[in-house]
Amino acid sequence: MIKVGIIGATGYAGNEIVRLLLEHKEAEIVWYGSRSYINKKYADIYQNFFKLVDAKCMDDNMEFLAEEADVIFTATPQGLCASLINEEILSKTKIIDLSADFRLKDVATYEKWYGIAHKAPQFIKEAVYGLCEINREQVKGARLVANPGCYPTCSTLSIYPLLKEGLIDPATIIIDAKSGTSGAGRGAKVDNLFCEVNENIKAYGVASHRHTPEIEEQLGYACGQKVLLNFTPHLIPMNRGILITAYASLTKKVSYEDVKAAYDKYYEKEAFVRVLEKDVCPQTKWVEGSNFVDVNFKIDERTGRVIMMGAMDNLVKGAAGQAVQNMNLMFGLKETEGLMKVPMCP
Amino acid sequence: MIKVGIIGATGYAGNEIVRLLLEHKEAEIVWYGSRSYINKKYADIYQNFFKLVDAKCMDDNMEFLAEEADVIFTATPQGLCASLINEEILSKTKIIDLSADFRLKDVATYEKWYGIAHKAPQFIKEAVYGLCEINREQVKGARLVANPGCYPTCSTLSIYPLLKEGLIDPATIIIDAKSGTSGAGRGAKVDNLFCEVNENIKAYGVASHRHTPEIEEQLGYACGQKVLLNFTPHLIPMNRGILITAYASLTKKVSYEDVKAAYDKYYEKEAFVRVLEKDVCPQTKWVEGSNFVDVNFKIDERTGRVIMMGAMDNLVKGAAGQAVQNMNLMFGLKETEGLMKVPMCP
Amino acid sequence: MIKVGIIGATGYAGNEIVRLLLEHKEAEIVWYGSRSYINKKYADIYQNFFKLVDAKCMDDNMEFLAEEADVIFTATPQGLCASLINEEILSKTKIIDLSADFRLKDVATYEKWYGIAHKAPQFIKEAVYGLCEINREQVKGARLVANPGCYPTCSTLSIYPLLKEGLIDPATIIIDAKSGTSGAGRGAKVDNLFCEVNENIKAYGVASHRHTPEIEEQLGYACGQKVLLNFTPHLIPMNRGILITAYASLTKKVSYEDVKAAYDKYYEKEAFVRVLEKDVCPQTKWVEGSNFVDVNFKIDERTGRVIMMGAMDNLVKGAAGQAVQNMNLMFGLKETEGLMKVPMCP
Amino acid sequence: MIKVGIIGATGYAGNEIVRLLLEHKEAEIVWYGSRSYINKKYADIYQNFFKLVDAKCMDDNMEFLAEEADVIFTATPQGLCASLINEEILSKTKIIDLSADFRLKDVATYEKWYGIAHKAPQFIKEAVYGLCEINREQVKGARLVANPGCYPTCSTLSIYPLLKEGLIDPATIIIDAKSGTSGAGRGAKVDNLFCEVNENIKAYGVASHRHTPEIEEQLGYACGQKVLLNFTPHLIPMNRGILITAYASLTKKVSYEDVKAAYDKYYEKEAFVRVLEKDVCPQTKWVEGSNFVDVNFKIDERTGRVIMMGAMDNLVKGAAGQAVQNMNLMFGLKETEGLMKVPMCP
Repeated sequence: MIKVGIIGATGYAGNEIVRLLLEHKEAEIVWYGSRSYINKKYADIYQNFFKLVDAKCMDDNMEFLAEEADVIFTATPQGLCASLINEEILSKTKIIDLSADFRLKDVATYEKWYGIAHKAPQFIKEAVYGLCEINREQVKGARLVANPGCYPTCSTLSIYPLLKEGLIDPATIIIDAKSGTSGAGRGAKVDNLFCEVNENIKAYGVASHRHTPEIEEQLGYACGQKVLLNFTPHLIPMNRGILITAYASLTKKVSYEDVKAAYDKYYEKEAFVRVLEKDVCPQTKWVEGSNFVDVNFKIDERTGRVIMMGAMDNLVKGAAGQAVQNMNLMFGLKETEGLMKVPMCP
Repeated sequence: MIKVGIIGATGYAGNEIVRLLLEHKEAEIVWYGSRSYINKKYADIYQNFFKLVDAKCMDDNMEFLAEEADVIFTATPQGLCASLINEEILSKTKIIDLSADFRLKDVATYEKWYGIAHKAPQFIKEAVYGLCEINREQVKGARLVANPGCYPTCSTLSIYPLLKEGLIDPATIIIDAKSGTSGAGRGAKVDNLFCEVNENIKAYGVASHRHTPEIEEQLGYACGQKVLLNFTPHLIPMNRGILITAYASLTKKVSYEDVKAAYDKYYEKEAFVRVLEKDVCPQTKWVEGSNFVDVNFKIDERTGRVIMMGAMDNLVKGAAGQAVQNMNLMFGLKETEGLMKVPMCP
Repeated sequence: MIKVGIIGATGYAGNEIVRLLLEHKEAEIVWYGSRSYINKKYADIYQNFFKLVDAKCMDDNMEFLAEEADVIFTATPQGLCASLINEEILSKTKIIDLSADFRLKDVATYEKWYGIAHKAPQFIKEAVYGLCEINREQVKGARLVANPGCYPTCSTLSIYPLLKEGLIDPATIIIDAKSGTSGAGRGAKVDNLFCEVNENIKAYGVASHRHTPEIEEQLGYACGQKVLLNFTPHLIPMNRGILITAYASLTKKVSYEDVKAAYDKYYEKEAFVRVLEKDVCPQTKWVEGSNFVDVNFKIDERTGRVIMMGAMDNLVKGAAGQAVQNMNLMFGLKETEGLMKVPMCP
Repeated sequence: MIKVGIIGATGYAGNEIVRLLLEHKEAEIVWYGSRSYINKKYADIYQNFFKLVDAKCMDDNMEFLAEEADVIFTATPQGLCASLINEEILSKTKIIDLSADFRLKDVATYEKWYGIAHKAPQFIKEAVYGLCEINREQVKGARLVANPGCYPTCSTLSIYPLLKEGLIDPATIIIDAKSGTSGAGRGAKVDNLFCEVNENIKAYGVASHRHTPEIEEQLGYACGQKVLLNFTPHLIPMNRGILITAYASLTKKVSYEDVKAAYDKYYEKEAFVRVLEKDVCPQTKWVEGSNFVDVNFKIDERTGRVIMMGAMDNLVKGAAGQAVQNMNLMFGLKETEGLMKVPMCP
């Protein structure tokens, strides 16, 4: 039984980690960390766990946790994980960091986009970017996994095969992203009130969203060159789900079958990436509550572009689910353990 | 492995049965019946099952099914199950009927409220009303289970202990119910279009909803006398969830502890009924996707009434989940098998 | 041109007063008071007013306002209006208070339910309860109007005629109310975040909501005796709208026409109360954005009760619209001026 | 008083025309045409008009209407208007067609994208494309106005100034559009049921949506050359609102002020187009219920692209409001008559 400590258990991602691990056969949660609710019963914060979780919220004592837990999930704001870890901790336990602290390999880029100094740059090189479908082998041996951002997960998986196969021009990539509101977190802000979000749609972080360099770095690995792209997220009046609509110019005339073959090459054996049938557009409701990413594409012969689409649940594959998938890999478990949830609809 | 046939697999309840059974260890679905989509791939109707279900939709051939399946779920409009079953079928297989055909013991009442002639009145007496928490033992031996309606499940469980213990006056019961829109089914009707339901609330079936006699019958058993009550359902702009707010006059001066003891007496050992802590109101989001019913109450000393509240997922405990719970009981499985889903929020 | 000052212009009710007055021919806003946003452009807080309102937010200087404005709307938390007014101010200007400070005639009741000491009890007697349809004549001559609460407006108008005509037993009244989330205000609270409200329904303030004594007082005037009733509000995942479902025992056997006649007696000539046709249930979407209250009823002969229903827009007839209606009456304008908005749907 | 006949009065656009005209001082509706509801009271179909509209629905007798009405609005499916009009009708009355029949100047393009034969190609040349801000003068003299599509209105207004001024490369335009569900109409389709749309987002009509050639034609006029672009609409779980996020490569290095000046050049004097302040992103809620289009832009120096954004209410400026604006122009009224609605929020 893997002992799991969670730091940041009362955010939406933390809450989702708990939901998944309660149904996971090989893991048990030993620590519900939440600075905001110390000593409060966890099930009083999230009543869905009434009679299912009896524990109280604890502080974020990582030294203690390093002794007690086999793995620590940090579902906390940027900067916290980097400020807490050190060699001693990493020598005793594994860490899956859901924040952005170890996602970018270039410190300067991190500090520029996030506006804070990096507290533990010495671990950046070691950290493995936990996009399981692409970095599976490295994840298996990692002590420190940087769990990918929600938008980068869906964007990268939607675009990766075509870029890797040289079918699209990296200089032409435009990603128009749409996310449910749980991605904005559980902080009490006017902008996220029901009446502000409901019956509304807006873009935000236009040309400045922090997930941009993360996507660019990952896609850069795919094509072997520096990638600059446009990424525009939008806030959608729904709880869960991310939809990516990405555009790029094709490098040559290709058929439906050519492009389909590229997707299949990378995803045919993947448990969690579903390449949909011809002309079926991904919809977030078909993946809700699950760890699936549904991808598909459409060639536009008139403009010479391909439209790439991806849908996933931002709290599962975009956060907690992928974190558990990484844990499974790191501990040599079946990769799908605890994650074969059937999407729930309506 | 229990072989399950589903008639009406493409309604919302049918779809939910499939979701639950795919994660059930002791059952497999051998028949996806759907008159409307014969020969279409089931996963083309519900894309959440893409790569999870390969089967095609079949007709509703109950004779054939009686041979092939250990149990048949009928998630179909009123009248269909009654028109299809006969002694030969019941001698070969078990039936869990999610329609209202066998819920009411009085044929005349059925025919009056549903406006159709009952096609198989000879089986009404045998049929067991599958409200597991109350009729557990009878369900275990049943061939034919009438799976309770969504409103009656939540209403009865919320009110039952107080009525059974004589704490409330049966003549004063008023049930104000609120349901998500999945309860209205997947039929293409203008009234259920997004733009008609969203940003709107209305009562419907006022003083005439068909679940009224079903609730009255069940509560009548609890107090040993005929019950007449008011039941008013409302349509809420959300997908899932039922909330019951019920009112009744207390028969005597009681304390919080007295009433709490009544609920605990009946539900303390129940896996799926959670009596909440003092002053915590049930909310549908805390049970979404799960088989739980959360109940609680508030005494109003000013008026001498008690307000009883219950929340559940109409598609799970209100339909598919309770059906699977009945199946588990009928086949001697662990009652919670396949049903210990953690509620999903947000 | 009536000069209007608004204190609390950046709440949802304040914002709605601005919307209505911008299209009002006889009034102009001279003061956008908002303690939280002093010196910020009003249209920066509510971008709907971009290019329509150029003013900046001001402090809540009531002395100054008394000189400058013909009428002051206070759309502020309980206690503020009472703490600011005095005889000098009332001698110079009129006040329409949207808070609860002057709604209850009994100070002790106010202090018990609101938990604060009343700062200006000397004006309670003078204040007119601004439910225009019932207190029209008194409003015309008032200096200080207590604008009714949202729930009390809809509840009282739905029940008043039957109680006044002696058709229902006051001891049996139960009001089950449902409100859109704008009623909860624009404060940044976790409970009102999109992800907490969406896909959810709950009761709140059960047996303890502050609007209870207000409704009881008003209905008490109708039947000439003290009324105690149950009032249970619910939070609905929609922006606007209140629906009231009220229950009471009939005092005698009555026909549809009898009850209809009672409603017509009081509302036939009213511009803003619409008694719907037989069997049509009020829906909030049919009144959205307008000052209408739609009411109707259903007799249940089985139980001897009548179900009374009312729907209105909580921000219009439940707050800003009724405040403007009161202003029209107080200044001798046409009562409907600026208020004949056609409901907007979908 | 202008006499207005509406053909297709019971669709969402028709319903919105009625709402707007009821508050219009110079127009009265003399004909509520609706083939589906002949002889039914209009207010029975749309209860918001209860006590406001007494008329019954009529057939679509255009000959009769040509005699009786000064202008006919056709809010009907593609093909109907073209099949009904002729020279005699146009000699007697004016027509504002909300369908696509007269929007495209090239018959072949129409027939290819809409898949039907054009029934009245002889009037295509005469028809004026009623995008008031761009074709104001032609509209004033028109007998037949093709009211623009919802997506083309918002897309064209968002992009037009930059293209006209040569600031962007027409070959690089990508439009990612998001629409509320009222754009899908009031037909009873499973895809538009509440439970299918709520908690979901999807793209549709990818690389094949019929509004593509309409946008291309209009933008082609702006830059004087043939334009091919990508247009991808998405269905959003909200009732009203369209948001356009458009991307294009800048033709040269420009400053914020340069681009702002281009927008101001075309829109500074426009009543209904609001160029927002720097860094403010358009949101659909800020224009809901109004005829405004809010536009803004963001330069991305990293990629050399500009992101152009526009938000409007699809039923007002995207349909009924623009139709009334066209009517005002055609009859020499003040262009804003009946249209200066303040956006309603929340």
